[in-house]
Amino acid sequence: MSTNVVGQNLRKVDGVKLVTGRPAFTDDIHLPGMLCGKILPSPYAHARIARIDTTKAKALPGVHAVLTYKDVPRVPHTTAGQAWPEPSPYDTYLLDSKVRFVGDRVAAVAAETQAIAERALKLIEVEYQVLPAVLDMEQAMAPGAPVIHDEPDSTKIYDKQRNIAGYILREIGNVEDGFRQCDVVIEREFRTGRQQHCMLEPHITIAWLDPDGRLVIRTSTQVPYHSRRQCAMILQIPVGRIHVIKPRIGGGFGGKQEMLLEDITGALALAARRPVKIEYTREEEFYMARSRHPQILRMKMGARRDGTIVASQMVVLATTGAYGSHSTTVQGNTGSKVLPLYRAEHMRFECHVVYTNAPVAGAFRGYGCPQGFFAQESVVDELAYELKMDPLEFRRQNAIRLGDIDKLSAQLGEGREGLPRVIRSCGLYDCMDRGAKAIGWEKKRKARPLPGHLKRGVGMSCTMQGSGIAGIDWASVFLKMNEDGSFYLQSGAADVGGGADTVISQIAAETLGVTLDKIAITSGDTDTTPFDVGAYASSTTIISGGAARKAAEKVRRQVFEVAARMLDTTPDNLVCGDNRVSTVSEPRKSVTMTEIALQTLYKDKLQIMDGASHFNTDSPPPFCVTFAEVEVDTETGKVRVVHLVSAVDPGKAINPMQAEGQVEGAVAQGLGYALTEELLLDELGRPRNANFLDYKMFTAKDMPKLTTILAETDEPLGPYGAKSISEVPINGPAPAIANAIYHAVGVRIRKLPIRPEDVLRALRS
Amino acid sequence: MSTNVVGQNLRKVDGVKLVTGRPAFTDDIHLPGMLCGKILPSPYAHARIARIDTTKAKALPGVHAVLTYKDVPRVPHTTAGQAWPEPSPYDTYLLDSKVRFVGDRVAAVAAETQAIAERALKLIEVEYQVLPAVLDMEQAMAPGAPVIHDEPDSTKIYDKQRNIAGYILREIGNVEDGFRQCDVVIEREFRTGRQQHCMLEPHITIAWLDPDGRLVIRTSTQVPYHSRRQCAMILQIPVGRIHVIKPRIGGGFGGKQEMLLEDITGALALAARRPVKIEYTREEEFYMARSRHPQILRMKMGARRDGTIVASQMVVLATTGAYGSHSTTVQGNTGSKVLPLYRAEHMRFECHVVYTNAPVAGAFRGYGCPQGFFAQESVVDELAYELKMDPLEFRRQNAIRLGDIDKLSAQLGEGREGLPRVIRSCGLYDCMDRGAKAIGWEKKRKARPLPGHLKRGVGMSCTMQGSGIAGIDWASVFLKMNEDGSFYLQSGAADVGGGADTVISQIAAETLGVTLDKIAITSGDTDTTPFDVGAYASSTTIISGGAARKAAEKVRRQVFEVAARMLDTTPDNLVCGDNRVSTVSEPRKSVTMTEIALQTLYKDKLQIMDGASHFNTDSPPPFCVTFAEVEVDTETGKVRVVHLVSAVDPGKAINPMQAEGQVEGAVAQGLGYALTEELLLDELGRPRNANFLDYKMFTAKDMPKLTTILAETDEPLGPYGAKSISEVPINGPAPAIANAIYHAVGVRIRKLPIRPEDVLRALRS
Repeated sequence: MSTNVVGQNLRKVDGVKLVTGRPAFTDDIHLPGMLCGKILPSPYAHARIARIDTTKAKALPGVHAVLTYKDVPRVPHTTAGQAWPEPSPYDTYLLDSKVRFVGDRVAAVAAETQAIAERALKLIEVEYQVLPAVLDMEQAMAPGAPVIHDEPDSTKIYDKQRNIAGYILREIGNVEDGFRQCDVVIEREFRTGRQQHCMLEPHITIAWLDPDGRLVIRTSTQVPYHSRRQCAMILQIPVGRIHVIKPRIGGGFGGKQEMLLEDITGALALAARRPVKIEYTREEEFYMARSRHPQILRMKMGARRDGTIVASQMVVLATTGAYGSHSTTVQGNTGSKVLPLYRAEHMRFECHVVYTNAPVAGAFRGYGCPQGFFAQESVVDELAYELKMDPLEFRRQNAIRLGDIDKLSAQLGEGREGLPRVIRSCGLYDCMDRGAKAIGWEKKRKARPLPGHLKRGVGMSCTMQGSGIAGIDWASVFLKMNEDGSFYLQSGAADVGGGADTVISQIAAETLGVTLDKIAITSGDTDTTPFDVGAYASSTTIISGGAARKAAEKVRRQVFEVAARMLDTTPDNLVCGDNRVSTVSEPRKSVTMTEIALQTLYKDKLQIMDGASHFNTDSPPPFCVTFAEVEVDTETGKVRVVHLVSAVDPGKAINPMQAEGQVEGAVAQGLGYALTEELLLDELGRPRNANFLDYKMFTAKDMPKLTTILAETDEPLGPYGAKSISEVPINGPAPAIANAIYHAVGVRIRKLPIRPEDVLRALRS
Repeated sequence: MSTNVVGQNLRKVDGVKLVTGRPAFTDDIHLPGMLCGKILPSPYAHARIARIDTTKAKALPGVHAVLTYKDVPRVPHTTAGQAWPEPSPYDTYLLDSKVRFVGDRVAAVAAETQAIAERALKLIEVEYQVLPAVLDMEQAMAPGAPVIHDEPDSTKIYDKQRNIAGYILREIGNVEDGFRQCDVVIEREFRTGRQQHCMLEPHITIAWLDPDGRLVIRTSTQVPYHSRRQCAMILQIPVGRIHVIKPRIGGGFGGKQEMLLEDITGALALAARRPVKIEYTREEEFYMARSRHPQILRMKMGARRDGTIVASQMVVLATTGAYGSHSTTVQGNTGSKVLPLYRAEHMRFECHVVYTNAPVAGAFRGYGCPQGFFAQESVVDELAYELKMDPLEFRRQNAIRLGDIDKLSAQLGEGREGLPRVIRSCGLYDCMDRGAKAIGWEKKRKARPLPGHLKRGVGMSCTMQGSGIAGIDWASVFLKMNEDGSFYLQSGAADVGGGADTVISQIAAETLGVTLDKIAITSGDTDTTPFDVGAYASSTTIISGGAARKAAEKVRRQVFEVAARMLDTTPDNLVCGDNRVSTVSEPRKSVTMTEIALQTLYKDKLQIMDGASHFNTDSPPPFCVTFAEVEVDTETGKVRVVHLVSAVDPGKAINPMQAEGQVEGAVAQGLGYALTEELLLDELGRPRNANFLDYKMFTAKDMPKLTTILAETDEPLGPYGAKSISEVPINGPAPAIANAIYHAVGVRIRKLPIRPEDVLRALRS
């Protein structure tokens, strides 16, 4: 399909305000009388609050509210007496009499200044009854381990006594039979680290009562509607009395997919009757917010001598930290999004998720896949070696293809309605071909080792992801025409910096036949924009974009009806483009959108406006093939990535420039996950490197040469053929680098991040 | 029809914030860097700006922008190169090289503080070439009068040389023939004064550029969309790049139906690149804003001896002041809304509207009717005396009735599409009966004169008005359901303090079967709410309320579809009420709105949302009969109103308490019009009493005993039978009081306001 707006590298609709530093973010407003809120974090990994006295804190001049568990109802975040369908178990409270990790909420204050708030926190007298803590996930399951969630109302915990938050078991075929049919079977154990999101804008929320007494929550969130619903339950006020505003967001990466500050900031604003702002410091962001789930994965894969993968099995132990948010959904993905990449007849996935007294893990770009692909793509590489096949050829022989049915996904998170995922577009092979060419695969795989201590190698990985959650995700868009033939678009979607507002506007503009400057968009406001599940699971382009296309099509029908009367023809004889509607017949006649707007608003007296919802029936996977060329210093163990190629099939790229930006960002985060990023805890569960000096992200100057390839396909389920792009490229760097290290120096590193000392140790053993 | 929400005296939806003094009004925000804007008013009634030098003003520290006619394009407010259909001629400019009344814009400044702005105004050097001015409307038409609009591009002026802005002539039947058939003919001349709106919140506008560079105009307006359109033309930026926000308004009464400050505030904000606020001082509000049109009316009416009115004729001379805004539309109303109240076969209306160098007249509650009814109802009273009939009986015999067709209205403003107005509901006779009873008409008409110098009398008047403008007015509403079964309503309507937000919410709540607290409303925001022509012509309840009902019906259909599936029945077997949907069959089953919301949002994955527009095809008249008992002091000429009865047919009163409030407010303003309120000009056209001390409004302590009667009817064209109420009661006090004065002391006062000196002079002559 030929398009005019979709597929163009148009400037972001919010670009000017960002590059000129105009107010845009949550923190860019100041409200009269606004107080500074601070949370008192637990200094212990596991303790009961034996006594808490806020008298002195409350007496401090300038303090307007002090809250402890005694001041708030103990409403678990799952069940608040209302039948909200909750996809994942929650077991947190606004405030509780027990703390379960270093950083858990003990109390909260709101005061005139930050200095007073911090002083007030020190004046809160707390007597802790310190309990034995467990930080290791294997120990947490062992008999006699301290029970982290002993509360009687936590009914959703799989096995309280063993600290098991969730358990998953799914099998297609019979893996035991499968492995028996194999000529080669490889089984390996992998460990992955605790990565932090490190979005440049920390979590921040400002809450106040509007003049009508409704609670307004201006917050850096990926999920405005979810936050409103959660706050309604926890603060026990009707949904309709809460107004959540999502301004421009400085990055989320899944970390803002949970309601973290909104409830406590709202509670403080209600208590103080003044606006309250809470913003995590960078240090707090590291240990009080969320992280990626650390996992121990046992990956087993078997193939016949002819190179056919017959069976694959992944057994995972993961920890969710002190609270169970996203525990089964993230870990479900580790199986469902990873194993089906290869067409094994027999697949099995088993996973335990355990509580530990560590900071809480949650949603994070990739959502379980980076762990799973690290294990799987490492084993696939070993298997290829074992079979003496080129790893690229081996993958070509076994990878999923157009028309395949992914039965495992139906059991594991995807296709909740029991419908297996069907591959309706597949650029995976194109990604392999173009990526291999870009990295110089054939030549470099056969290159002789360099002399000296710097050794080079190339490795690769194949990965996939979803595009929203089938059976769950949906969104709505509302459109109206202005008098000048421009349009105002209201979308519930939450642009978290990835450019969703631009993509949604481009889809609407394309459908309506107008230029992008004719669309003004408001998004992510629970009052003025319609419902949307929020920004996660790479859903926004396909879901909210799908709603935008539907709404624009409905509005276009109205536009065509008016234009048909004006042009004395029928709507089916009309096309739109370039801000006008034209007849397709000869000689062509046309009217401008402005003329149509004037006709309808001032003559027909009818507003052209409509809305539509879009619901995800399936989650078409984007694919990504990553190639890495590395240089390993055999004297220091240091790994330098020389060149990284990320070849992605996003379906149609609505805005290729933005899509490439997403790939670059995901690769940078994937490189950090592979080589440097890990939040470290000491033996008492306290963070050891909660700052940007000691926690090492890939900065611009650390980045290797990066080649981004968009291998576009046309996805029938996506608007203008789009699938998604923001997550899938994060999965590839770790396994591609690990495989490249093996190619360079012959050692397999099966623990993330891959540190120089690990490489050196492996080289020496 | 039985209703649960409509017809109830429910608390205003914005009541709490108003009585608790929460921020609500335009001025209740402060923007960082906001500048104070001031306009330099002309000190002369007519002059050319021979030289203007802003050098010193611009050099003053703290001044950020100074604008004169040299800095802005000369875009007449009518024609800006765009085909906006304009109902009334405009001939103002953002700034011009000529000034036409004392208070006309000469220049504007924006500065850090009000003191600096005022000092800057003084530093602007202006050399005026003073021109002969004309303030008297008869002189303005006379040969040789100064020509006020000599600009060549003012093409819409009816007769430039004679300063005639507009001319209207309409006739039904043949009045000359008619008068020849009459036994009694009375012809009298009346004069009416220059009343000011005196809304407690003066005109105020704050303009700034939002982070995306769009011009935001937060303004106390009755017409957000009209203001946006006008500003787009005048400032020459696209409509879609302007965002007009109407906050809570502190009264409009028609005075905020024009775009008065928005353009110049916007121009200053664009020039200064800083937020700018302009608020009229009370003094400025008196002479720089708008007033009611002064008129000279010759009213002639004839009847047969049997009491049948056969012919009526009104010849009007009115002045619009220096600019022509609303000149023909207001004066058209003086004929079209007034003459058809009686079923004369022959009617004729002729009107000249002339320019003078006086402050500009514009829209004002009643919109031409208070002048017309003062003349007509005075003459009807005289005619009854002449025929020796009771004035009430005489009116009963001749007044318009249910089913009548008002042919004049089709020619004069109403029924622009040429369709004559049909009376589909008529509570006029009920109003006469109940009002007469309340005042004690029969007894008091026959009462003997009191001894001494205090004489009492009773008088009455019948009046009508419209409910929006047929063929012109329309509005749109958008509704969506929240997760808790509450609804969010977006309306373009502009609540100006009359309670429209509450009325619209009640109509939506009634239609959806929910309680009023389940509706949250946003209104009057050109971005987030759909199109609406604005608040004028008593249109909001019938038009915006009509749109609310239509949108709610569309949403109810969606609600019923979901409920039908949940209750295993069909939608036509369902009713809603009390926040639930129930089957009408036995045994009754029901689901709550919350359950329906959860079903649709979390199971069906579909937003219940829809919008609708409503277009006024006819303008059903509300009726009002006013009775006044007065006490005239024959020694001082002072008239005291002892008791005033206003019996009104508003159709169905959506919120009777609010409707009564509207009647009380209109009566207070009508009493001022009758007895005390007049902006006086000196011989140079300068205001003499532009303050609340010398310009005398009826305050709470001046009010007479007031009886308000709602004689409800069921108007088929209105939502739930509603017509309108805000304007019609203002028309009655002046003629009722004049007639009561005659009844008390036997003198006819035919000039408004009726001052003690006029009464005394009449008594003595």
